[in-house]
Amino acid sequence: MKIIFIGDIVGKPGRKIIKTHLPEIIEKYEPDLIIANGENAAGGKGLSQKASDELFEAGIDILTMGNHVWDKKEILNFIEGDDRIVRPANYPTGTPGKGYTKVTIEGKTLLIVNISGLVYMPPLSCPFKCIDEMLASNDYDYSLLDFHAEATSEKIAMGWYLDGKVNAVVGTHTHVQTADHRALDKGTLYISDVGMTGPYNAILGVKKEDVINKFITKMPTRFNVEPNGPKQLNAVFLDLKAKYISPIQIVD
Amino acid sequence: MKIIFIGDIVGKPGRKIIKTHLPEIIEKYEPDLIIANGENAAGGKGLSQKASDELFEAGIDILTMGNHVWDKKEILNFIEGDDRIVRPANYPTGTPGKGYTKVTIEGKTLLIVNISGLVYMPPLSCPFKCIDEMLASNDYDYSLLDFHAEATSEKIAMGWYLDGKVNAVVGTHTHVQTADHRALDKGTLYISDVGMTGPYNAILGVKKEDVINKFITKMPTRFNVEPNGPKQLNAVFLDLKAKYISPIQIVD
Amino acid sequence: MKIIFIGDIVGKPGRKIIKTHLPEIIEKYEPDLIIANGENAAGGKGLSQKASDELFEAGIDILTMGNHVWDKKEILNFIEGDDRIVRPANYPTGTPGKGYTKVTIEGKTLLIVNISGLVYMPPLSCPFKCIDEMLASNDYDYSLLDFHAEATSEKIAMGWYLDGKVNAVVGTHTHVQTADHRALDKGTLYISDVGMTGPYNAILGVKKEDVINKFITKMPTRFNVEPNGPKQLNAVFLDLKAKYISPIQIVD
Amino acid sequence: MKIIFIGDIVGKPGRKIIKTHLPEIIEKYEPDLIIANGENAAGGKGLSQKASDELFEAGIDILTMGNHVWDKKEILNFIEGDDRIVRPANYPTGTPGKGYTKVTIEGKTLLIVNISGLVYMPPLSCPFKCIDEMLASNDYDYSLLDFHAEATSEKIAMGWYLDGKVNAVVGTHTHVQTADHRALDKGTLYISDVGMTGPYNAILGVKKEDVINKFITKMPTRFNVEPNGPKQLNAVFLDLKAKYISPIQIVD
Ligand SMILES: [Fe+2]
Ligand SMILES: [Fe+2]
Ligand SMILES: [Fe+2]
Ligand SMILES: [Fe+2]
Ligand SMILES: [Fe+2]
Ligand SMILES: [Fe+2]
Ligand SMILES: [Fe+2]
Ligand SMILES: [Fe+2]
Repeated sequence: MKIIFIGDIVGKPGRKIIKTHLPEIIEKYEPDLIIANGENAAGGKGLSQKASDELFEAGIDILTMGNHVWDKKEILNFIEGDDRIVRPANYPTGTPGKGYTKVTIEGKTLLIVNISGLVYMPPLSCPFKCIDEMLASNDYDYSLLDFHAEATSEKIAMGWYLDGKVNAVVGTHTHVQTADHRALDKGTLYISDVGMTGPYNAILGVKKEDVINKFITKMPTRFNVEPNGPKQLNAVFLDLKAKYISPIQIVD
Repeated sequence: MKIIFIGDIVGKPGRKIIKTHLPEIIEKYEPDLIIANGENAAGGKGLSQKASDELFEAGIDILTMGNHVWDKKEILNFIEGDDRIVRPANYPTGTPGKGYTKVTIEGKTLLIVNISGLVYMPPLSCPFKCIDEMLASNDYDYSLLDFHAEATSEKIAMGWYLDGKVNAVVGTHTHVQTADHRALDKGTLYISDVGMTGPYNAILGVKKEDVINKFITKMPTRFNVEPNGPKQLNAVFLDLKAKYISPIQIVD
Repeated sequence: MKIIFIGDIVGKPGRKIIKTHLPEIIEKYEPDLIIANGENAAGGKGLSQKASDELFEAGIDILTMGNHVWDKKEILNFIEGDDRIVRPANYPTGTPGKGYTKVTIEGKTLLIVNISGLVYMPPLSCPFKCIDEMLASNDYDYSLLDFHAEATSEKIAMGWYLDGKVNAVVGTHTHVQTADHRALDKGTLYISDVGMTGPYNAILGVKKEDVINKFITKMPTRFNVEPNGPKQLNAVFLDLKAKYISPIQIVD
Repeated sequence: MKIIFIGDIVGKPGRKIIKTHLPEIIEKYEPDLIIANGENAAGGKGLSQKASDELFEAGIDILTMGNHVWDKKEILNFIEGDDRIVRPANYPTGTPGKGYTKVTIEGKTLLIVNISGLVYMPPLSCPFKCIDEMLASNDYDYSLLDFHAEATSEKIAMGWYLDGKVNAVVGTHTHVQTADHRALDKGTLYISDVGMTGPYNAILGVKKEDVINKFITKMPTRFNVEPNGPKQLNAVFLDLKAKYISPIQIVD
């Protein structure tokens, strides 16, 4: 099973470069499935109906989320009814939406789970216990975890914890692609962070001036998605059967 | 001016792969100077006399530090007298050691500064104000900052803040090399994190079992450097004059 | 010099109980000066022109602030011109407003300083260094610090650090009055937290349901000031000359 | 049912003032049960066999714990076998020791639970869900929660959440007694923090110089329990039936 996993899509620039360059990625890698992290797809914060429609139309099959999942309140109108959207599974029982989804391709079922880390992140239930429960309570042939986390220690620990148990553990959230993609000892494909899809000359997708001003002045600052300049697309190609992972970086 | 900058060296495995592979790196890149982050060089925590001696003898010219600078108390015996060791400059006035050093090569002086970030890090003075002061109060031809920080937002903000003012901003601390090395718009060489030099099948250099156990049980756990298995060397090559940066990854 | 210091005033309920009960406090204690923490005076977040006018008219002489100082943007319109408003002094140079003010009563000058803590708080410059500089660069007969901080360790450390150097160190920010008011060994009057002035059957002034819902669901929740029910007024009476401090608690 | 609950006992000075003054407290209040937080009873960090023996001999019936529960490793030797020691219940299943205990007095059973907060604390499972489960899975006539937490918001939220469901919610951990003891609307007895039992002229029980030095220099500093000077005993008296709570403060 061949998958393209795209790092956090930020705002209109992120959606735009997806539309422009996803066709050539599809042509090159012939993926069975395209997953993207969509927690910043609407104006840099959250996911709107419009942004999710745009991304699904552009060819993305599944959107995973993260700590920004509820930033656009309108997601509460459509997250329940849409099996293509996966929010962190370690929210409490009763939270709107689902923490996993399943896709069957040519008779093989892929379990896709989204979990949020705890280190330097809002308090949710234990990610390690959560993935154990997800794996135990589902039937599937292949499995992939989007571990949305900040600290490299927690991410790599999750990778090794799941080595041989899950086909792929990909990290998201830091908006910077890491150079540590590999197959772990027992075959689990791993990367600490897939990176970010959005403005290239910006800070995590936000205008440089906004973020720098915040760090210098310590004053509240509105963070605007950088609307101008080149864009970047960060992704990984995963061949779960061949146990192969390779990074994708496009700047345009 | 050509520089090799080596990511956080962890314990004996880190020092060992330096000794084994630095000669071939020197032969290939012909650097004028070799800098390494040494905050974890002694047993994974801090810097001992023995570890620093070993690394200088192996060919490293300058050791930068980070939040682990004081983990081995014996550093207080030699940090004052050794201009080759640079601790975060944003410690208070009066702190042992220095936050910068200068090296002159063929008539050109390189200013090397080490600064610690504040996001998810212990409280020190403002990194942005600190680098401004360092640059204003020193004479130099070239400059390089090791920004030892956790959050990608703070690191990239520092990169853009210094674009055109400093020749290179390299990040350390997360122990994972990032895939975002580039020259920024005005020529500053940048990478969010150079990565880690030490055990390859480990978690930031620490035994997998130790870190996973901590995350699962929430109990205090002693973190041991992984003594066995393959090792990795993470570094970047920087040509300050040519405004060129390229990553180095060796696994052995 | 006799002072009433009132703990964080929260929204309309806080302003209302001030108007109702300040007269009787004035009558009872005959203070030379009334200081209040006003960082939550407008709708629970920040300080508006209207809220500050109301409080000054009610008899408060000086308003100190805290981490919520910028929550109402309109404060930027009047903080510069109003010497009765004091924001944390450890913001960077160039920040609007002032970190201290002076009041002269019967020929004696009181220096009033507001400083924000760093533990579990946004990063500002070192509080300890900041107060040292404030004391060194001002002339005064008496001095009082509102140390707006979260952690008891940092607050008590500040108290002992300033024992004998400052006449009073009063803590704010946690919205709960502590039962540790005392004169320290060298005479500095101290209390870890003066408490909160606002809704009594609420959580730090916010509706119980809002805060509980946030803790249970982990979902973003709008925090509304509790508009109904009894109110509380938390304050301390300080006699700087007599080295006497006593708590004031009114519930109505 | 009448209870004395004693705030975090710190080191030898804390144990000493217990021995000296508990007899007079017993005489005055005639409690059915004496509970104390013992997480700092051994040298300021953790609980040793010796310290717990001393405290039980002095008349304490039950010791609750907190984030320092594992600081003395030897607790693993006796926590399993001793029903008088209660560690935070929101540790993962399988953690040594128990999160609750029951005591029957004159035919009435009191359920005593210890839970750790999450705000500014290590990540454990949700405190609110945890107490719900504890209450649902136990039989009892009376109940008391020691909520070991930092943030006033989380503590007061727990109080109101349990109002009418639990007889008493007492906070510990900040080492400073709060002045907000009361019966909530539906009768639950509440105090945000019971305070600390140990050195009086110190910072949370630690030598002033140690803590101040850490804040000033930002260097690692060994924290020693203050061995000299006066001591304080902080506690509350709770009459669960009469819905009455009153603070106890002794300085000697
Ligand atoms: Fe994101
Ligand atoms: Fe995120
Ligand atoms: Fe490191
Ligand atoms: Fe570090
Ligand atoms: Fe406040
Ligand atoms: Fe505050
Ligand atoms: Fe404690
Ligand atoms: Fe504690």
